[in-house]
This record gives sequence, C-alpha cells and structure tokens, in this order.
Amino acid sequence: MVGRGERRAQVGQAAKISGGKPARKSRTDARGKTVDRGPLPELLGYALRRSQIAVFQDFIRSMGETEIRPAQYSILTVIARNPGLKQAEVSDSLGIERARLVLVLNELEQRGLAKRVVSTTDRRSHALFLTEAGETMLVELNRRVAEHEARLVARLGQAGRRQLLDLLSKIYEA
Amino acid sequence: MVGRGERRAQVGQAAKISGGKPARKSRTDARGKTVDRGPLPELLGYALRRSQIAVFQDFIRSMGETEIRPAQYSILTVIARNPGLKQAEVSDSLGIERARLVLVLNELEQRGLAKRVVSTTDRRSHALFLTEAGETMLVELNRRVAEHEARLVARLGQAGRRQLLDLLSKIYEA
Repeated sequence: MVGRGERRAQVGQAAKISGGKPARKSRTDARGKTVDRGPLPELLGYALRRSQIAVFQDFIRSMGETEIRPAQYSILTVIARNPGLKQAEVSDSLGIERARLVLVLNELEQRGLAKRVVSTTDRRSHALFLTEAGETMLVELNRRVAEHEARLVARLGQAGRRQLLDLLSKIYEA
Repeated sequence: MVGRGERRAQVGQAAKISGGKPARKSRTDARGKTVDRGPLPELLGYALRRSQIAVFQDFIRSMGETEIRPAQYSILTVIARNPGLKQAEVSDSLGIERARLVLVLNELEQRGLAKRVVSTTDRRSHALFLTEAGETMLVELNRRVAEHEARLVARLGQAGRRQLLDLLSKIYEA
C-alpha cells in the first residue's frame, strides 16, 4: 500500500522538468499524489484506450441485471438486422475474432437469446437468428443503451458527439 | 465458410428498411457482402472500441521486434518520468488493474527493462525504476511511437488530432 500524505520530491521535480501543461499531463490520484504521465495523454492510442474503458464501464453498469456485455449487444444487433447471417459475416462486419465470436454465440444460445440453424444452402455453415426472447431482450437493451449514450452526450454536447463519431470513423473505417 | 458471390435477399431488404445512411451503417466485407450494422456506428462505445483496436494493431506493428505492447510502453513511460514510483501509483495513474500490472511488471523485469527495489520508507512496497537497458529501449520506443502517431495524423490532420484528443479527454478525465 501507499502512504497517504507522502509526496516524494522527485515527483515534483519530474513535473518541473517536463514543463508544458502539467494539468493535462499529470494526474492527481485518490491519494492526492501527482504522477507525471509524460507524453501519454497526447498519444491517440492512450486516449482512445482510456476512453473506451470508461465508456464500456458505463455501458456495463447501464445493462444492469441483463448482464449483457458490449460485444454481446453488438452481435445481437447485427443478427437482428440481418437474420440468417453467418458467423464469418458477423466477425467480419464487427471485427471480432472467429474464436471469440464462437464463445459469445455459445453464451447467447445458452441464454436462449440467439440460435444457430443449419444453412439450407451450405450445410457446413450455420445461419444465425434471434429467438423471440432475444428480440424482446434487444428492445430492453436498446432502451438502456439510449440512456447510456445520453450520459455521454451530456459530457460532450451533441456537436461534440457528432465530431467525435466523424473523427473516429476516419480511424477505424480506413 | 461463406460462399463468395452469394448475397441473400434479406440483407438488401434490411438495408432498405433501415433507410437513412446505408454507406455509414453497413459495411461491405472482403467477400463483397453488405452487413447492416444498424445503430452501432452511431454509438460512441462501438466507434471507440473499433478505433482503439485499429490503433493498437498499428502500434503493435510499429513496435516490431521490440515486441513491446501498449500497456508495457505506458508503464515504462510512467516509471521513467517518476523514478521510484510504487505499483499502486502506476495502476492508479494509468487505470490498470493491480493484478494485471503485476504480470506486466514481471515481464518487464524478466526482460531486464525495469526493476523493483524495496522501498526505504515502506518495506511492504517496492519502488520502481528503469534499468539502463530500459532507458535505452524507451528512446527507441519513443522513435517508433512518433512514427505510429504520424500515421494517425495523416488520417485526421493536425487539427483533427487536436480535436479528437480534446473530446476524448472529456470522456476519460471525467
């Protein structure tokens, strides 16, 4: 554990040496210590990862007792929009690895939310559908997702949200 | 596997029903199929996760034979900036779970890049330092990170990069 009031001289020194914008670069934690994070907050990968974790944490809280995780929600949504979709198409369109998708589909099938049906055109592949329970669940999930999204908009403003989505699409649609 | 030229009627139908902006909402994969992703590309969590994965993939490629992953780089950076830092301070400032941090520190110590020194003020905790090899490695990593970041700026422009960092900080510094 860390002594609470303790603040080492070298931390202050590092902040002085780094100069620039200490308010952005350093972070005062719950113990009141300031840690110099150097160039990290100015790196897109760092900022994206921190933001993604923060948003996923809020998403998971928003889902509450449904216990639906972000990837499960995305998969349910894509199957609902494209009934009969194949596993390879889900993983391609969402950028989810095949092995991981199989695990998530197993969970969704065990919970009775989605089902695999042997394809009539290709017996080696399965066509994916939501069950009736899956359709009902998705209505409830969409309601919760809308609340979650509204909390993010409260931080960014509507214009900020639009800007952010447009900038992100330049990164991941490239 | 999925038949290549095959395009089911229901996919086209779903795209028609969904209306709006199919170019943004749907995604044509390598097989030429269009999958309707519904509201997903308009959800910040989805866009953040896709972007974070794309950027991390480029980061990992950029690190090449150093085989340094994003979390390892962040930890090396914070230790370099704050010599003598404690584990709890690293995990607080970077938002990395304690258990995971211990694993990464073990790796960095095994590679001879960082070291744990028993603290003189609190014998139960360790003070973290880079080794000389770690300092040398960090210089090389920073060179590679600069190239990686420049590739992202090429997609966004300098103004876009600044906007994106400012918007993200509103999410994860909240």
